Amino acid sequence: MNLIITKNYEEMSHIAMHQLLAHMSKGDEKRVNLAITAGSTPKRLYELLVPEVKDSPCYSHVHYYNFDEIPVPGSRYGVTLTELDKLYFSPAGIPDEQIHEYNMDNWEGYDEVLRKDGGLDMILMGLGGDGHFCGNMSGTVDHFGMPSRLISRENIPEVFDAYGINLPHFPSFGPKTVMQARHVIMIINGSHKAEIAKAALTGPVTTDVPASILQLHPNYTVIIDEEAAALL
Amino acid sequence: MNLIITKNYEEMSHIAMHQLLAHMSKGDEKRVNLAITAGSTPKRLYELLVPEVKDSPCYSHVHYYNFDEIPVPGSRYGVTLTELDKLYFSPAGIPDEQIHEYNMDNWEGYDEVLRKDGGLDMILMGLGGDGHFCGNMSGTVDHFGMPSRLISRENIPEVFDAYGINLPHFPSFGPKTVMQARHVIMIINGSHKAEIAKAALTGPVTTDVPASILQLHPNYTVIIDEEAAALL
Amino acid sequence: MNLIITKNYEEMSHIAMHQLLAHMSKGDEKRVNLAITAGSTPKRLYELLVPEVKDSPCYSHVHYYNFDEIPVPGSRYGVTLTELDKLYFSPAGIPDEQIHEYNMDNWEGYDEVLRKDGGLDMILMGLGGDGHFCGNMSGTVDHFGMPSRLISRENIPEVFDAYGINLPHFPSFGPKTVMQARHVIMIINGSHKAEIAKAALTGPVTTDVPASILQLHPNYTVIIDEEAAALL
Amino acid sequence: MNLIITKNYEEMSHIAMHQLLAHMSKGDEKRVNLAITAGSTPKRLYELLVPEVKDSPCYSHVHYYNFDEIPVPGSRYGVTLTELDKLYFSPAGIPDEQIHEYNMDNWEGYDEVLRKDGGLDMILMGLGGDGHFCGNMSGTVDHFGMPSRLISRENIPEVFDAYGINLPHFPSFGPKTVMQARHVIMIINGSHKAEIAKAALTGPVTTDVPASILQLHPNYTVIIDEEAAALL
Repeated sequence: MNLIITKNYEEMSHIAMHQLLAHMSKGDEKRVNLAITAGSTPKRLYELLVPEVKDSPCYSHVHYYNFDEIPVPGSRYGVTLTELDKLYFSPAGIPDEQIHEYNMDNWEGYDEVLRKDGGLDMILMGLGGDGHFCGNMSGTVDHFGMPSRLISRENIPEVFDAYGINLPHFPSFGPKTVMQARHVIMIINGSHKAEIAKAALTGPVTTDVPASILQLHPNYTVIIDEEAAALL
Repeated sequence: MNLIITKNYEEMSHIAMHQLLAHMSKGDEKRVNLAITAGSTPKRLYELLVPEVKDSPCYSHVHYYNFDEIPVPGSRYGVTLTELDKLYFSPAGIPDEQIHEYNMDNWEGYDEVLRKDGGLDMILMGLGGDGHFCGNMSGTVDHFGMPSRLISRENIPEVFDAYGINLPHFPSFGPKTVMQARHVIMIINGSHKAEIAKAALTGPVTTDVPASILQLHPNYTVIIDEEAAALL
Repeated sequence: MNLIITKNYEEMSHIAMHQLLAHMSKGDEKRVNLAITAGSTPKRLYELLVPEVKDSPCYSHVHYYNFDEIPVPGSRYGVTLTELDKLYFSPAGIPDEQIHEYNMDNWEGYDEVLRKDGGLDMILMGLGGDGHFCGNMSGTVDHFGMPSRLISRENIPEVFDAYGINLPHFPSFGPKTVMQARHVIMIINGSHKAEIAKAALTGPVTTDVPASILQLHPNYTVIIDEEAAALL
Repeated sequence: MNLIITKNYEEMSHIAMHQLLAHMSKGDEKRVNLAITAGSTPKRLYELLVPEVKDSPCYSHVHYYNFDEIPVPGSRYGVTLTELDKLYFSPAGIPDEQIHEYNMDNWEGYDEVLRKDGGLDMILMGLGGDGHFCGNMSGTVDHFGMPSRLISRENIPEVFDAYGINLPHFPSFGPKTVMQARHVIMIINGSHKAEIAKAALTGPVTTDVPASILQLHPNYTVIIDEEAAALL
């Protein structure tokens, strides 16, 4: 694990931008596949990235994937893609053909889709308060070999309620999907993440703390601010 | 997983030799670190490799590690290094300074030793009848985050007895150590391995079948003959 | 330059085989593009390689290119491909779809063809007695920026006669084509090559000794036996 | 050649910053060696880079080299390092041990110094009005195989006078030194560079236009604004 402890959220966002640009600047013609995260943690990162990428002549070979999705009835995009679109795709002017939708219609067998596309070069994620990564909530991971999968309300009804998800299930990359990426990046900030960061980064590898499996990835970078790293 | 099914043991051994030569032929000055296996499975592989490597002007930058060791009282080398020496190091004329002993004296904190040496470029292993890899026998793996460790008789006395190991414990790379390697190669042959190969390569990721964790490595190559692959 | 001096032709051939297997064993699905040489120098190399590759389950992603061709009227293959077919493609059972013909019909703009195919991962060549590589004979190279090109009898009639080439020109990868390859390998053997090896490997970079340009490639491996290396 | 045409100087500077960050963000422990340019062309680039690098926890493995130097009598740093120090090293807070001085005292055999340090991962250069790169002025390049070398007043007295260089010679990486770098990046801007850019990027490879040799590098990126690219 490459552990990078930053002074604050602002510095975490800058270092994460560097890592993304590093992947995006590879090759000129070789396709680069990135799975990226929505949510509040990467907000500043995308603010920094947008002016760098907008109208740039360099990044037409970069392809983007979302790694989970909460469907919104009657809408093409669910919660995740709507957020990504607002935070990054629209302001950066990413063309549709570089955006690969992952949703209820195509989640099954998606590991094979990624493989055929050349595999993920990088996946950028945040850490959930319960130790989840992507949609792999604590209490839903039978074992770490699960590929693209459905997360079911019946396993964690209180979590679905807390997030206001009125659905029986939603799709997410599984632990196996994420472990197949060539580079895994996690961004973490804030004192409220200190306990779970300690468990996920230094504790036993257990399905109770799903993100603990990422400790075993040979190319795992964690960018974490001082507050979240307080207990490491 | 890159699954290569070969006609027989002979072809398995050739393909494994190609993979080793591929790693050994990298760079001329950049150090290459390989952890390799003793035992019966790689016997033919080493027979093929020895004449290629012996007296070669090309491989002084290749460093070798054993990944477990069963000590033999009064002897410098234990069972593993004695076998590796007989099968490969001596006939190939590998100089002492390219051989890195792993044993009871230095197992603790060995993950850090490997990291300082530049990390393992490749680890070559066989698959145990109980699903073990390195010394990580079924029944000894508390969780997959374990680094370099001791395997204890008290957990699996019958296995120690079966192998004739009259010792309280012996050291082995843990699951975490192996997962940090940049490339993991497993060789498997024979119909008696068909059941466990199926479990290890396609079953759930569980500590009961320790090698199942390797399914999650992003760069995992399995070279398996038709007999062992019969149930895949 | 990575200079590997071998005891003799046999060892040169083995090391060259290792280098080829190293490239061929990369990735399982990512296409690998190799340009390889005909002629007498690689004869033993192909003898060694054929049994390793024949019927192998591993090498369907390897694509082969010839880098020059002397057409034979009324025949699909010219001199080069006929030789490569005899030495390697036929005995190794390489399928047609992995063999990419380069000839009088398609030489123009071939640098772009290679680029679209993903670029050459490796090119294996011998060294001509006049310092040529591919068909870039001394006396035919105006400057080192020449891409895929025609070699004309009018520039070197005596050479065409010496080789028995009754044609106005034949096509060859130019110096620029070769320099774009990610790895350049040259094999040289025999005391009759000692003088020109010295000039090509250690002399000034000049169009009089075309292969001298290869000194500037950042990833250039020379495998040369002791006799040819006598003056280095 | 990877040709990136940007709208203007500002965009050229941003894309160059991305490329630098891409190299700097590689690995966490593996040393990265960059040779970088002084002068006016990269001024904005360094303005952008400084706040990203200053006090960052990530870049202690990045080492910097200057590629030419015009000595200033009585001063430790010459013109180049003085400029680099002012533009980048001081404001970014780069520690002395990451800055590798190249000067009159150590230029001889410097190719070997670079090789022992692991080789240059990237070299960033501008294009001179006469087609020079580093100090390799037109009229001083005997052949493209020249390693680290002295540029002599006697060859180009008018150029020395024009630059106000009252010295018999100054050291520069030679064409061979630059071609050994794993990635070559050139930044070019302004309509006054349009003619020479055309010659250097698309003309014959000739010592009259020294930078024309870079066309042969397998990993060559040119970042050029529209004005300078007008004739391409």
